[in-house]
Amino acid sequence: MSNKKASPTHPRKASDVSQWDRETDIAIVGFGGAGGCAAIEAADAGAEVSLFELASEGGGSTAMSSAEIYMGGSGGTRVQQACGFEDATEDMFTYMMMCAGAQADEAKIRTYCDNSLQHFDWLANTLGVPFKDSFHEERAIMCLTDDGLLYTGSEKAYPFSQHAKPAPRGHNLYVEGDNGGPLFMKIVTENVNKRESITVEYETRVLSLIIDDDDEIVGLVIRQNQQEFNVRARKGVILCAGGFVMNEDMLARYAPKLLRGNNAIGNPGDTGTGIMMGMSVGGAAINMHEGFISIPYYPPASITSGIVINDKGHRFINEDVYHARLGQAVLDQPGDRFYFVLTVEQYGDYEKMNFMGADIAGTGETVEELEAELRLRTGTLQNTLAIYNEDCAAGEDTQFHKAPQWLQVMEPPLVALDITPGRGVFVPMFTLGGLDTLPTGEVLTAEREVIPGLYAAGRTACGVVRRADGYSSGMSVGDATFFGRLAGKQAAARS
Amino acid sequence: MSNKKASPTHPRKASDVSQWDRETDIAIVGFGGAGGCAAIEAADAGAEVSLFELASEGGGSTAMSSAEIYMGGSGGTRVQQACGFEDATEDMFTYMMMCAGAQADEAKIRTYCDNSLQHFDWLANTLGVPFKDSFHEERAIMCLTDDGLLYTGSEKAYPFSQHAKPAPRGHNLYVEGDNGGPLFMKIVTENVNKRESITVEYETRVLSLIIDDDDEIVGLVIRQNQQEFNVRARKGVILCAGGFVMNEDMLARYAPKLLRGNNAIGNPGDTGTGIMMGMSVGGAAINMHEGFISIPYYPPASITSGIVINDKGHRFINEDVYHARLGQAVLDQPGDRFYFVLTVEQYGDYEKMNFMGADIAGTGETVEELEAELRLRTGTLQNTLAIYNEDCAAGEDTQFHKAPQWLQVMEPPLVALDITPGRGVFVPMFTLGGLDTLPTGEVLTAEREVIPGLYAAGRTACGVVRRADGYSSGMSVGDATFFGRLAGKQAAARS
Repeated sequence: MSNKKASPTHPRKASDVSQWDRETDIAIVGFGGAGGCAAIEAADAGAEVSLFELASEGGGSTAMSSAEIYMGGSGGTRVQQACGFEDATEDMFTYMMMCAGAQADEAKIRTYCDNSLQHFDWLANTLGVPFKDSFHEERAIMCLTDDGLLYTGSEKAYPFSQHAKPAPRGHNLYVEGDNGGPLFMKIVTENVNKRESITVEYETRVLSLIIDDDDEIVGLVIRQNQQEFNVRARKGVILCAGGFVMNEDMLARYAPKLLRGNNAIGNPGDTGTGIMMGMSVGGAAINMHEGFISIPYYPPASITSGIVINDKGHRFINEDVYHARLGQAVLDQPGDRFYFVLTVEQYGDYEKMNFMGADIAGTGETVEELEAELRLRTGTLQNTLAIYNEDCAAGEDTQFHKAPQWLQVMEPPLVALDITPGRGVFVPMFTLGGLDTLPTGEVLTAEREVIPGLYAAGRTACGVVRRADGYSSGMSVGDATFFGRLAGKQAAARS
Repeated sequence: MSNKKASPTHPRKASDVSQWDRETDIAIVGFGGAGGCAAIEAADAGAEVSLFELASEGGGSTAMSSAEIYMGGSGGTRVQQACGFEDATEDMFTYMMMCAGAQADEAKIRTYCDNSLQHFDWLANTLGVPFKDSFHEERAIMCLTDDGLLYTGSEKAYPFSQHAKPAPRGHNLYVEGDNGGPLFMKIVTENVNKRESITVEYETRVLSLIIDDDDEIVGLVIRQNQQEFNVRARKGVILCAGGFVMNEDMLARYAPKLLRGNNAIGNPGDTGTGIMMGMSVGGAAINMHEGFISIPYYPPASITSGIVINDKGHRFINEDVYHARLGQAVLDQPGDRFYFVLTVEQYGDYEKMNFMGADIAGTGETVEELEAELRLRTGTLQNTLAIYNEDCAAGEDTQFHKAPQWLQVMEPPLVALDITPGRGVFVPMFTLGGLDTLPTGEVLTAEREVIPGLYAAGRTACGVVRRADGYSSGMSVGDATFFGRLAGKQAAARS
């Protein structure tokens, strides 16, 4: 015990610890997908593990998600192959590199793609996660059937499709409805519980790291029942404490773009304390301004045949991309009004499942009438639709390269939905910045030196997925579980 | 001395210091505009100051700049008033808040605007910086005459002009040509040198901070002539070591957008070591993804009457904004080709002073011809110009609100300049992220607690200017000198 304050931004010094209250090999902060998988791998490598969770049960944001898992390459997972999809590692790698853009961490993406098939096998065989060998054809944000495989990103859309052969890589658990997350974490929890070398302590707040005179991370300060304890971690600490979407101060300072969302996706513990603990010992937090932010406009898939315009009456994106890519494009546009323009037929389907909650902004028996109703300058939407319809008739979207299957000449009457963020439409968001780590989970300083004894995974780290406009569903749970495992292994191997 | 490694990411522990080689009240890292002004104010408040500079002379990036200084409010500076401009503090405040957008630090902007007039007086009277009471009318990126005042931002452009009464706030030193920076730093250096309580040590590399057991910053490790020395700073350390535009690794990790520029603006010491030193003791670096990045398309001012289009033939910004706002807008647009379309008359002026180095991408005796030559889809640029010309004839830019003075009906023949970043055009850039500080310069953790004894100013801190699209020339030297002074005062007052 020590009287000195311990907090996420104030590590305790080992020299101030008069007594170690507990000892373990590896202390893990946070029992979500990353922490659970890290614990299992570390235990299977022979380490003693203590897993600390703030909530009264495990699960984290993974349990609240659909738990699609982005996997493929090496010819294809069992499910991909059964559904008739070959998937080359290089296609997956190229796609994921394009997704991450200028922010790409090539070493991480390479490791992820090269070992994705093995990750599938580990999930399916070691953990027992069930995936049905069936393909979900329809364009969906989440799979509400028990099908095992679906397209969850922009793989088939321009420009990705020009550079990487598309394959569906979103693996969905064998369960009806949007229940993948709870089932996944149930299975992870069972796997954790049956390993005797893992101890899980719930309702435990981790207050700070403990650092020794050589700047090694040697433990944690925890609080249970209003009492503080010093926990020694002989091999190190793995931070798997989520992102910071629930910390409005941090959002304002680091990722103000996300404040344009209206629905924080995450668990109440996503307050950035894991990231702060890393920063408190010189860890570099990177990509902090980025996050997933989206206008989830499908299903129905048929809306994809409509067009999105800005307040100048112009299109600015191919509407067949992943929904967060469209959401990001909206945020990047000048102007302050955005519409999805649909024919009455296209709207018919939408009305049945208005998932995104957009209101009707205008209708028109003619294009001119809609233009006027939306207060667009005369001649703008008319020009946009004239060009678009010519292109549809010719079977090629010359302007934004929407795939031919979605090209339908749009004849009035027309309906415009208001998809302006801040005007009622559903805009979910979460953070994509975190501690800079090696693929092994080792946390790095601003000069990319390893901080001995400190690891991070899941949204506490900055993983393979770095941008809203390059997001695909399944990349977060994929990243958290994959790199959670690597961190667990790496820490267990530390002497 | 200590054998333990000291580096920007590895602070030395005071307990590892066996001997203090030097002592001072305040140690300042970096002798540019921020460091110089911090030293002067600290000395004038009675403190003993040691100023350490890596180069063989002072100056930093300030000496390489035009040293325009953004000042106003409180009715107007002497120069503003002499030139007939009243400037209300609230107009300046509103403008600067809009410039910083979602990233605004209101406390800093408030302090800056409330005390800007006093800052002018201090520069003019205490330091002796000369400003001529004359107004430079022409739209310019830098003032090549000796005039004292010019518009240096987007004050007169939409949307700023709708919310804040425009006033010119760029104060230019009384010197011909682009020579404000050298003159400014000459004056600062003279002021530093005549204060006996300031010692300047050149060719001195600061290796790391020194931190004591209570997490206070108590000194610096420096290297001179290949020898290390421990410097005790009784009142604290002020980091004024610039930004990180010269550190390509950091740019890639923190501000990849700036890699789209081709001309790093700064001095060779802008390698981020000041920011890293702050991070090494738990300081929070914020806004790290942002930077100034620009396509400096004027002078001549007449180019402002042309239009900028993307590869869809669409305009996307009012062309009368500050050049970095246009540069950022280009980066935010989808598509990969951008053109400035001009009439032959508008081009005539441009040819005489092709400052930005853009090549001609196409010409046309008719709009159709130019459209074809630029490989734009038929009907796109024609529609854009039809609408634009109608608006010009009516005297109102209905689409992007360019001010009426710039609206000229554009008749062929037309010329298109290629302003696509990466294709020859000049794209200067520098960083705008840095340590989170209070207006007093005190460095903050991720939870915004003060790190005792640590201060930062200039581009090592994250100042009032936070975004390329809200930049105005003079805001960086304004920020560096203003908050350098406050940091110097605050440190001197520390007991």
